[in-house]
Order: sequence, then structure tokens, then C-alpha cells
Amino acid sequence: VTVEEQIQFLRRGVNEIISEDDLAEKLKKGKPLRVKLGVDPTARDVTLGWAVVLRKLRDFQKLGHTACLIVGDFTAQIGDPSGKSKTRKQLTPEEVQENVEAVKKQFFKILDPDKTEITHNRNWLGEMKFDDVIRLCSRYTVARILERDDFEKRLKENRPIAMHEIMYPLCQGMDSVELKADVELGGNDQKFNILVGRNLMSQYEQEPQVAMMLPLLVGTDGKEKMSQSLGNYVSIQDEPNDMYGKTMSIPDDLIANWFELCTDVPLEEIAEMEGQMKAGEANPRDIKRRLAREIVAEYHGKAAADEADRYFVETFSKRQQPVDAEEAKVPAEAYQEDKVSLPALMTALGLTESNGEAKRLIKAGAVSLDGNKVAGLEPAAPEEIDNKVLKVGKHQFRKLIV
Amino acid sequence: VTVEEQIQFLRRGVNEIISEDDLAEKLKKGKPLRVKLGVDPTARDVTLGWAVVLRKLRDFQKLGHTACLIVGDFTAQIGDPSGKSKTRKQLTPEEVQENVEAVKKQFFKILDPDKTEITHNRNWLGEMKFDDVIRLCSRYTVARILERDDFEKRLKENRPIAMHEIMYPLCQGMDSVELKADVELGGNDQKFNILVGRNLMSQYEQEPQVAMMLPLLVGTDGKEKMSQSLGNYVSIQDEPNDMYGKTMSIPDDLIANWFELCTDVPLEEIAEMEGQMKAGEANPRDIKRRLAREIVAEYHGKAAADEADRYFVETFSKRQQPVDAEEAKVPAEAYQEDKVSLPALMTALGLTESNGEAKRLIKAGAVSLDGNKVAGLEPAAPEEIDNKVLKVGKHQFRKLIV
Repeated sequence: VTVEEQIQFLRRGVNEIISEDDLAEKLKKGKPLRVKLGVDPTARDVTLGWAVVLRKLRDFQKLGHTACLIVGDFTAQIGDPSGKSKTRKQLTPEEVQENVEAVKKQFFKILDPDKTEITHNRNWLGEMKFDDVIRLCSRYTVARILERDDFEKRLKENRPIAMHEIMYPLCQGMDSVELKADVELGGNDQKFNILVGRNLMSQYEQEPQVAMMLPLLVGTDGKEKMSQSLGNYVSIQDEPNDMYGKTMSIPDDLIANWFELCTDVPLEEIAEMEGQMKAGEANPRDIKRRLAREIVAEYHGKAAADEADRYFVETFSKRQQPVDAEEAKVPAEAYQEDKVSLPALMTALGLTESNGEAKRLIKAGAVSLDGNKVAGLEPAAPEEIDNKVLKVGKHQFRKLIV
Repeated sequence: VTVEEQIQFLRRGVNEIISEDDLAEKLKKGKPLRVKLGVDPTARDVTLGWAVVLRKLRDFQKLGHTACLIVGDFTAQIGDPSGKSKTRKQLTPEEVQENVEAVKKQFFKILDPDKTEITHNRNWLGEMKFDDVIRLCSRYTVARILERDDFEKRLKENRPIAMHEIMYPLCQGMDSVELKADVELGGNDQKFNILVGRNLMSQYEQEPQVAMMLPLLVGTDGKEKMSQSLGNYVSIQDEPNDMYGKTMSIPDDLIANWFELCTDVPLEEIAEMEGQMKAGEANPRDIKRRLAREIVAEYHGKAAADEADRYFVETFSKRQQPVDAEEAKVPAEAYQEDKVSLPALMTALGLTESNGEAKRLIKAGAVSLDGNKVAGLEPAAPEEIDNKVLKVGKHQFRKLIV
């Protein structure tokens, strides 16, 4: 594979490379590059958004390069303030450790373990003493750090920035120095931090890393960046039907973007599908079914993808209701005297997290019985619900048995 | 001694106490207070300016309180940025240690060793790891730190502030937490740092320290704060004649202020002398002689003060030249062929630091031979200078012997 072919392949879905010339220079040496990705285990699920950079890392692996995955067990305590408008809660070392264990397994659903080095930044950052921190900090000015968009914005709006937050970029930069990274990958919001690393490496007389920024995947709501705190995410651990259903719920104008960032479908094919949709020659729902199948196949295999597709077609497309809804016995705790409280029932069956959530869904018109919306919160007589299909939200069905 | 009398005594020369009520509350408990003074060994001489706060600490000792002197062997590496318009050079641990040894001896020319605790902040700050630094930093916002006058000014003027500089106030604050200080003393430029300590102590659930700020002594130039880097200082190690002569060189309008801050002469007496000078009833030079005697007596004893006074009167007042100038043999290295280079001579005799300095002094008209200004830089024939008194600057005389 020539250098130009490698760059062509790597460029897919990438927003910015600083700089492509530097990348070409490094590739020309013919040695495997050390490609850094820092992951802060501040949550337990690897989402499709997170997977965008992990998949890019796999692209490097496919070309024979080494993935250097840094588990930010030290930096997670600070909490990356990138793009945040307020100080994040500091995680305890125990919370961090639990998250680390949870996400590590998920990485290898995407990465090739044989070409992956995993290191923990506590190994070096945790060993630094106050003297070392001072020496590190002396290499950067306050003004340069505060130039970062989100810091600048918070300062201007008089929103607090805690002193420890502005050390985050330096920590991330030290990781690059420690790792002697050739390339660092990250979302667009990581550009500043990655460039700090580039700069620190020069100061430590190393060849500076290439910065490669990828777009942030928009979540299922079609508006915000996919994020676990916003609830608009798909986890790569989601069950096939759930993963498929959530993908089908994205707005049509995201389809092409998700194809580019979440699948390996060739760009020409994506462009073709996009053209067909625009010309009215293809039903977006069918294109989206292909997208959902591709995504489920990536994490659960082709058979599971086909099965999820079949389930979806039966459940949603044909009847808006499944032929084979799971049966559920109405449990004792759902009863209020001799009637059944629907919120208590939904929560007891695990369809909602709490009675409060259940009530909100009912009020929002998202709950139905045999296709008829549940109008109010009054308890129902058992005979009114027996043998009927309870639908909660878009994807959950239970055939109730009193 | 009542609480009110103690406060009355302590208030002398003090600019601000935050707050006097808090101080009264602490004194009422009847236990010796822990009075903190942090000293950063960034230089080797204790100046009269530095002595102002040391003397205030001694005032506390006179009332039975404990002086807690913190040698900032850790913070000296950062260099206190208070009042500075640019980042200070970071000292090496070795440089710091040499300075520590040099200044420690000088402290006890002022303080009572039996009521003094000396600690080094490397003992706790040096033990902190990066985690600890992050936890400490999380207690303060960037905006609050940047409110400090000098930081604000530098930011506005786009002058760099290194990241480590803004940690200085937090370090100083941690010293107070570690020491459980009741009072912290400092110059006016320390107000911000001392209040950070007050705030951090509250956060660590300690009773916050009282902040006591003293004015910064103006140097012998009558303009700038006394400082070793500006050369407008009197060291408490200066020889009696030198200390006396430098004091005599201050402008008359500083006399009362120096009396208040550098001596124990009662305030009423100072006010009286000031009145006499203003009314033209006393010659400022005579009042200044008393000031110089008081200062020399403080550091060298009364006999030395009297001797310095006698020397001054003979040297300067009566003849502008001493009757007993030290004899100095013109050394071989001062010769250029068979003539004597005055700059080389002055430097060889230790009267100037370099030939460059010597040339500047000659050009400035500050060098004379037997009372006649040296006009140019041409080498002199030995017989022209033999047995003549060479005067360099205001205070240095040598009787030259060829």
C-alpha cells in the first residue's frame, strides 16, 4: 500500500489533519506508527459516538500500525472539561476503576487486540509530584490555555472554571510525551488538547504528533452530540433489537452521516443511496434498514442483524404491534386494592425506571393498550387489561395476563 | 496585658488587619497565638524591608506568642509572582538551599529563637502528588485567582503568566492549613495570598487566620520598594559604616516612615521630630543621624552605632573625605604597560564589580582622587595617583599606595 493510498483510506470521515504533510512524512519511514487514543472512563458504555474514533483506530491497525490506547484513569478524576459549560464532578478512584473494567471489554469488540497497547495514565501522571507538576505547568501560559473556546466562553459568562480543569490539556499532552505518539486521534472537541500535546512534544524535543480530528456523531435525537448523559445514544452493548430500533429512530437527514461514520459501506455507495433518496427513488426507511443491519452486524454478527430486521418489520412496519409480544403476569405489587395501577405495573415489569417516568410517558401519550392510548392515571379494573398488549414507548410490548 | 493593649501595641506600622475583631477573639482565649510568616529564600540578604515584617513578628513574641516561620524552600522554586510583571526565573533546589542557609542566620538577629518554630514547606508541599494538587486546585476557580491585581494587569496587557505562577497563592494557603496559623503577616502585596489561606482554612474546617498586612518599605532611592534586585536596599548584614551611610542617603521625606517601620522609637517622639523638621526647628540631617544610629544599634549594638556616627561626621559632614581611608597597594593587574588603568584598579580592589561598571561611574562623575573628579578613562602615571585618596561612589575610599 502506498503512502498516498494509506492517507486516502485514513481520510474517510476525518474532519481535519494537522498536518497531512507530517503524516505523509511519518508514513514514508515505513515503520508502524504509534496511534494514540485517550479514553477517559467517565461512563460505562462505549457508544456509537465513541466507536467513531475507535473504528478510525482500527483503520490504522488494518494498515499495520499500532493502536496505543490510553485509559485515562488519572485524568478521569479531573473530568475532561472540553465542551462543557461547567465543572464536572470529580470521580473517586473506585468509580474510575469500575468504569475502566466495564469499557475495556467493549474496546475489543472493535479493535484488534494483537495490535493494541493499553496503558493507564495513572502510571506516569499518578507518579508525578508537585515539583513535577510545577515544571510541567511552567511550560504553558494561562492565556494560551484560556484561549480554548469553552474556557473563554465560561470566563466571559462568569461561569466558574476550577483551577484543576485547566490542567487537563497539560495532562493529556504529557500522555503523548510519555507515549511518543506519532498520531493522536480525537473528536473535534479534542483539537485544542491534541495540539497542546503536539506543542509539549516539541518542548520535550520529540517529533510532534499528527493531530487527527473526527466529527462528533449526532445522537438519535438528531440534534445533540451523542452522549450518555443526554440519553440520545446507542451503546455497542445494546441488544440487537434495541440497537436496530434506536437506529431506525434517527431522522432521515442523519442517514448518510451515520453510514460514513459507523459503517464500512463504501463512500460511493453512500452517495448513491443519498441520491436515490433525494430523487424520491428510494424510501428512506429502507435505506435506514440497511444502516441498522450494518450496525447490528458490526457488533452482533450478520445473523443477529437479519433477525433484528425481521423482528422490526413484523413489529413496527407491518402492524405497529408485534405478533409475538412477550407475555407478562400482572404482579401483586401493581395492585391498588382490587384495581391495577398502570405506572406501578410498568415499573414492576421493568418497562420504566420509576413510577414518575411511567406517569410522564402516560401523560405524553406514549403508552397504549391494544393500540388505544392510555388517557389518564386512574387504576384499571383487571378485566379491562387482561390479554391486552401494553405498549410503552416505541419499542416495548407486553401481553398482560391477569 | 489586656487584649486591647496587645492590639494597640501590634497595630504600630500595620496597614490593615482582617479583621481586628477576629484578632481580639483569638487573643481573648489567652493562649499563645501561632503567627505565621512565610519567607521565600529567593535572595541571600535580609533587608530592612524584609525586617519590617520580621520585627512585627518579634512584637508578637514580646507578647508571648509563637513565631511560625515558614521557609519557602518549595515555593521559592516557583518564585512568588506578587507584584511582578513577568515570570520569575525558577530556582534550582541547590540555589534555594544555599539561600536558605544564608538567610536563616540573619533571622535570629531579629527574632527570639526560643519562641520561634521554623518549618520548611517542602516537608508537606514536596510530598504532595499530582492527585493532591488536583484536589487542592479544585477548591479554587481560575477567575478568583486571576482577580489578583498583578495577574489581571498582566493578562490585560497580554504579558505572559505561566501556569505554575497561579498556583503560588494555593501553595501559600496550604502552608496556613498545615500550620494551623492564627495570624499571617505579610507585606501589602501579600494580601491576596494571605486571604486565599484564610479561605482555604475555612474549606478545611479550620478557624481562619487573621490577615495582617504591613507597608512595603521604600528603598534608599526614595522611590521604589526596597529590593535586592533594584540595589536600593540596606542589608541587616551590612557593616555598620555602610548601613549608617546608606541610611543617611535616604530622602528626608522618608525619615518618619523609616523610624516607624525600622525602629522602636515611640510614635509620639517620631511625630515630635517630624513637627520640628517641618517647622524648621531641626535639621533633617541630625534627625536622620538619630535614625541611622538606631538602625545600626539594632543590628550591631550601641557602640558600633556611635562609632559609625563618629566616622560619618568625620568623613562626610566635615570634609567629604575620611581622615583614615584604608590603604590599598595598587596591584599588578591594574597596570597597562607602565601606567595604571583606573577601571582595572577599581575592579581589582573590589570597589566595582566590573570594568564596565567602573567606566560608567567615572563617566557619571562619581569617582575622584583627593577630591578632584576623575575626568576621563586614560591610564594614569603611577606618580599621579600615589598617596592620593580614591573615592568611588558616596561611601568607598582607598588611600592608594603605588
